[in-house]
Amino acid sequence: MAAIQQRTEQALDAALPDAALSPDELHAAMRYAVLEGGKRVRALLVHAAGEIAAAEPERLDRAACAVELIHAYSLVHDDLPCMDNDVLRRGKPTVHVEFGEATALLTGDALQTLAFQVLSDTPLADDAGRQLEMIAQLAQASGSRGMAGGQAIDLASVGKELTREELEFMHIHKTGALIRASVRLGALCGAPDDDALDRLDRYGKLVGLLFQVVDDILDADADTATLGKTAGKDADHDKPTYVSLLGISETRALADALLAEACEALAPLGGRAHHLAELAGFIVHRKF
Amino acid sequence: MAAIQQRTEQALDAALPDAALSPDELHAAMRYAVLEGGKRVRALLVHAAGEIAAAEPERLDRAACAVELIHAYSLVHDDLPCMDNDVLRRGKPTVHVEFGEATALLTGDALQTLAFQVLSDTPLADDAGRQLEMIAQLAQASGSRGMAGGQAIDLASVGKELTREELEFMHIHKTGALIRASVRLGALCGAPDDDALDRLDRYGKLVGLLFQVVDDILDADADTATLGKTAGKDADHDKPTYVSLLGISETRALADALLAEACEALAPLGGRAHHLAELAGFIVHRKF
Repeated sequence: MAAIQQRTEQALDAALPDAALSPDELHAAMRYAVLEGGKRVRALLVHAAGEIAAAEPERLDRAACAVELIHAYSLVHDDLPCMDNDVLRRGKPTVHVEFGEATALLTGDALQTLAFQVLSDTPLADDAGRQLEMIAQLAQASGSRGMAGGQAIDLASVGKELTREELEFMHIHKTGALIRASVRLGALCGAPDDDALDRLDRYGKLVGLLFQVVDDILDADADTATLGKTAGKDADHDKPTYVSLLGISETRALADALLAEACEALAPLGGRAHHLAELAGFIVHRKF
Repeated sequence: MAAIQQRTEQALDAALPDAALSPDELHAAMRYAVLEGGKRVRALLVHAAGEIAAAEPERLDRAACAVELIHAYSLVHDDLPCMDNDVLRRGKPTVHVEFGEATALLTGDALQTLAFQVLSDTPLADDAGRQLEMIAQLAQASGSRGMAGGQAIDLASVGKELTREELEFMHIHKTGALIRASVRLGALCGAPDDDALDRLDRYGKLVGLLFQVVDDILDADADTATLGKTAGKDADHDKPTYVSLLGISETRALADALLAEACEALAPLGGRAHHLAELAGFIVHRKF
């Protein structure tokens, strides 16, 4: 896992424009937003799903870059004053604190664009048609019917009571869609059979939700130092979470149930799915 | 030309999610930002360039949507308080005035994503590899080495004296790159020969610069009612323009020279290039 994290870091470093290139401030901000940060969960999922479809690691690096770039762009924009107004991310000042709001806005914009450039400018699949499918899927997962849409639902829900169904709908979009797309993109870099693709998709959907459920538990539990971002901010912002809705012990039970279901979806794939199953466990325990 | 503008409007209407779909506020804002607005210069360029390569009109509609969506996203973000802080666009309140800053941020984000979705989710070229090339070119033209980069240079230049070379460098990125990409994308929807592609590219580069030079003239000349956006704002913001650098009459001479050069690049293409030449003239006279 450390090896994948390291090669993802290298691939991102190579995909990002050099900070010496004009406009240098924007390029410095893009690199600051992306590099040396995060557990690269989405990149790990791309690679683990790619293993099942015997995909070439160099292709998986590009696909992993694309999803990590989308993720990084969303964090930069989410942290802006008009959104969560957060000053700390991964233990560092957020991009707008370090570079100013206007540059942070452009940084997020340019990172999103770079994700689609990375997915289109070198061959990543056995045929170009499949690569177009990868791009369409990443776009769908990121846009108004995916991640950005989940963010909009989140905005609209501040101060409101949500039902469990509404909370789930929000998270499936806000966090789940990109995680699910990471799994699909990894598989499409290789040659997955239809049954494997179905199982991976089910796994991706469950793990996407699991990720957010665990995030809610961590946000309620941890202190700022452990988390590397401002802790307890959901409660502060009066945002609905699984913990506020179900209580901490029922939320933990939900996480356990989702983990079991995700592993069950993979079971018929045998040893090939070992890393994916392991990853689901790591997402719960965040020991990486 | 009116027919192309109308079919572009219809294609955008069809590409944008229905405002009744969740998240409805975001979808309403996306439609507000895109529909019923603008002269669709980029869409007209896509179609006129496509004519030269005998491209199918339905493909050109999709490519035109993609560039218009990128353009619309850039306007929504440029108008935000942390950027130009503009309240009026195409005679209507800007998106953040109408829907709030957070929704405007997400609107721009989701419009960019939709552009790449539109370019990837249906066949648009004679082979999928060429379609990947179209996506890579749009990404390059929009990102940190294109439009977003030009915006960053613009930000950094407020209150500074620029040389003519620096001003040109800024505009070639900020406005020119997407206009040039519009021409290329239109051509790639069909089967252009290499000589035509080279000539179109030269035309696109010249017209991209011409567009900005004329914009500077209009901004210095016109009143707010004619322009549909706040006039004289470049001078107010202490932004360098061609007019502030060269004076109005030398800027007009520059526009004439660029127009002549653009038409010259097209001349060997004969009658097929008639609409492109006409468009360059319209860009100067803005009589459409």
